[in-house]
Amino acid sequence: MAASAPISKTIYIGPFVHSKSLSELEIQEHGAIGVDEDGIIRFVERSLQDGSLSNILQQKGDDWADANIVQITGTGFFFPGFIDTHVHAPQHPNTGLFGKTTLLDWLQKYTFPMESSFKNLSLAHRVYQNFVSRTLSHGTTTAAYFATIHVPATNALADICLKRGQRALVGRVCMNSDLSPEYYRDQSVESSYADSKASIDYIRSIDPKGEIVKPIITPRFAPSCTPDCLSAMGRLAKETDAHVQTHISENKGEIELVKELFPDSKSYTDVYETHGLLTDKTILAHAVHLSDEERKLILERKSKISHCPASNTAITSGCAPIRSLLDEGHTIGLGTDVSGGNSPSILENVRQAIWVSRHLCIQTSSDAVKLSTEEALFLATRGGAAVMGMEDKVGGFEVGKEWDAQMISLGVVSEEGCQDGAFEEGPVDVFGWESWSDNVEKWVYSGDDRNTVAVWVKGRLVHETSRYPGVKRASTP
Amino acid sequence: MAASAPISKTIYIGPFVHSKSLSELEIQEHGAIGVDEDGIIRFVERSLQDGSLSNILQQKGDDWADANIVQITGTGFFFPGFIDTHVHAPQHPNTGLFGKTTLLDWLQKYTFPMESSFKNLSLAHRVYQNFVSRTLSHGTTTAAYFATIHVPATNALADICLKRGQRALVGRVCMNSDLSPEYYRDQSVESSYADSKASIDYIRSIDPKGEIVKPIITPRFAPSCTPDCLSAMGRLAKETDAHVQTHISENKGEIELVKELFPDSKSYTDVYETHGLLTDKTILAHAVHLSDEERKLILERKSKISHCPASNTAITSGCAPIRSLLDEGHTIGLGTDVSGGNSPSILENVRQAIWVSRHLCIQTSSDAVKLSTEEALFLATRGGAAVMGMEDKVGGFEVGKEWDAQMISLGVVSEEGCQDGAFEEGPVDVFGWESWSDNVEKWVYSGDDRNTVAVWVKGRLVHETSRYPGVKRASTP
Repeated sequence: MAASAPISKTIYIGPFVHSKSLSELEIQEHGAIGVDEDGIIRFVERSLQDGSLSNILQQKGDDWADANIVQITGTGFFFPGFIDTHVHAPQHPNTGLFGKTTLLDWLQKYTFPMESSFKNLSLAHRVYQNFVSRTLSHGTTTAAYFATIHVPATNALADICLKRGQRALVGRVCMNSDLSPEYYRDQSVESSYADSKASIDYIRSIDPKGEIVKPIITPRFAPSCTPDCLSAMGRLAKETDAHVQTHISENKGEIELVKELFPDSKSYTDVYETHGLLTDKTILAHAVHLSDEERKLILERKSKISHCPASNTAITSGCAPIRSLLDEGHTIGLGTDVSGGNSPSILENVRQAIWVSRHLCIQTSSDAVKLSTEEALFLATRGGAAVMGMEDKVGGFEVGKEWDAQMISLGVVSEEGCQDGAFEEGPVDVFGWESWSDNVEKWVYSGDDRNTVAVWVKGRLVHETSRYPGVKRASTP
Repeated sequence: MAASAPISKTIYIGPFVHSKSLSELEIQEHGAIGVDEDGIIRFVERSLQDGSLSNILQQKGDDWADANIVQITGTGFFFPGFIDTHVHAPQHPNTGLFGKTTLLDWLQKYTFPMESSFKNLSLAHRVYQNFVSRTLSHGTTTAAYFATIHVPATNALADICLKRGQRALVGRVCMNSDLSPEYYRDQSVESSYADSKASIDYIRSIDPKGEIVKPIITPRFAPSCTPDCLSAMGRLAKETDAHVQTHISENKGEIELVKELFPDSKSYTDVYETHGLLTDKTILAHAVHLSDEERKLILERKSKISHCPASNTAITSGCAPIRSLLDEGHTIGLGTDVSGGNSPSILENVRQAIWVSRHLCIQTSSDAVKLSTEEALFLATRGGAAVMGMEDKVGGFEVGKEWDAQMISLGVVSEEGCQDGAFEEGPVDVFGWESWSDNVEKWVYSGDDRNTVAVWVKGRLVHETSRYPGVKRASTP
């Protein structure tokens, strides 16, 4: 389905679940959510009982009389689309490959060779089409993508996101220092600036209002850029008022390297500050080993943090102290960080965020550092929305927000115990005696993409599986 | 398919992968493995090239002329079946539920109420049928099951494993202390002994040679049993020469409790030692916080260790020092520990074992504690086989071993980047330029049950998905 096709007014009927606050989920068993032709939520009903659809239709007047109806049929619920605040689309083919490396040697061995191959535009098309399909299939409705240094391939990723209807910040990667191999880096500060600007201009030309895709200025990380290159990116951020994304304080070796390369800076964070890159539209990925002063500065600048737990574990970077960053008031979302992270699924990263916080608890013997299920789901939705500057648009189900949502469907075990072993309904087993909060917990701790049977962005269906029950009309008896 | 149906002589053709040693995988691209009517491997060829099947048939003589042929068609390989050395089958419906608990309150809130409901035999049937289907679908060909205190339900689990053809050690849980609620515990030491004995006798009656199912004496853990009950179990172990399984040193609160309850014992391990439960057929689950003396004693007694990384993270128990236990010479396998663990998949626990070891590395700043991919796969197969006392039978592909195997099939990305987003082939994306060791790593770090398209135990097909290519005859041109 093309993202430009018109959509119909639709009422989504069935249980819905979203974050009420950082620590609380709202679970409504008898929901009905009306979404208009622009993909905007127009009403949210919480007590729809059997037979009351006609009442609702009557209340809402003629406007909704012939609306489409999408109804949960088995055991399932609507949940806000996931937001991936940090992901490298060109590293998709390297998912699961790290051997025995950690950050700096992993970049040289796996990442730079793969990314450099994106000068081949047909390869870029193949990988990006597949990856956008993958992330949509996991319920990711919005992503902040790092692309590569190549303008044509970066623009192709933006085209694909726009066509497929996935909200995205798409960034051409800027890197000109000799940390990167000669075969894969910007040739000069001037070309860094010009190429980044060219990609920003292109992305703004294909979606002038930035409803689906927007550009994001993407200096890879401090060691990848010379000081004047960072300054040029800071200037570009000011001139274009664009988002900014980069990495920060992921791994101890990297922090030492930044100290060596920027001896006059007070800290890693100060490098970005002094080059004009610490804005309220900046997304800082990782933030594992920040000092108190750095945390304070990030808070003052209203920059945002992307927590990438699977990646931080896989490449042995460390455990970001998310619970205390939240207490300080930081704005935090989750990132898959493919392919430092081994999964394109934000649901997997919800689990991993919880596991990482439990490992912090094991290290510190303090229960206070643990993230709850509710908190991790908040980070995956409303937290991520705030990181992307979209908290007024997406992340939960309120009137006026846009319908970015996934339909979750859980497998129900037959009375005989489904002996055929096919399990096409996915990995969750519901026996029928569970509470609604148990159902949600089962999905969080054992669900996967098979449980995401349909996905919408701004009211448009952008992914469906064979288990999506489809649409009927309100006017059909 | 019933486990008693006859099987045909079969040649398995295609790449195969198994552990050569703790630190090394053997990956053979051009394999052919011949398996006879008893499920025994009769030959392993490593250099079968196109067209050489007829050569092999000629070499092997008339015996193999009309053998069945099972051939890998796409990108895939044969891998030994997984061995789950610690799993609670009745806790399957609680998978993913732990709320904010750790071990001791989790038992009271979730585990005991669920397990006690297994006095209802039809419920037991429903859950066990489903769970054996689930574990088979994840490639688990052998499991050490904790059942419940109920003899009929325990025997039903053994019946199901035998019928479905999954190798299993099945244990009636013994627990008589007042740690367990009155509604769910053995009523006396005598009934503990008699019920455990009854279940051993039953399981030995249905499979007299113990080819598929065997009994295992299962005192839940020290705090669940009074000293005379532990002694009675020790006596039973001696009388029956049966396997033994229990928990050890999982969580710090539990260790304190053991100190209080057994003030005369030198350690948690010593409790089992002094009650005759530390044998060379004993499987000790967890072993997270053992002292040096305890580790030495376990080694002397040749008892085995089941490492349950997902569970240890999920209920915040700690990080078992597996790398150093291996260096000391311990025999170690992996356990899912459903439902302390949130997944019935040993593949997921391969990943989690690696993550836990990386968290130990983060804690200790020592790279030496890291488990490699190869080591984790060894634990999942040959390590587990040794834990179960089956190292001569299963765990790898050698002449004389039995064919316990899974066919792994990976998804290949089309030239267009498979834009439909169906991904029925599972979560692994192969682009075609990968090395064989990359393919294996991709499976390890992003595979799931969808990639396990067929499973055999002792030569018998015990699970298949719609992607299993099936059997043809050697004699058919």
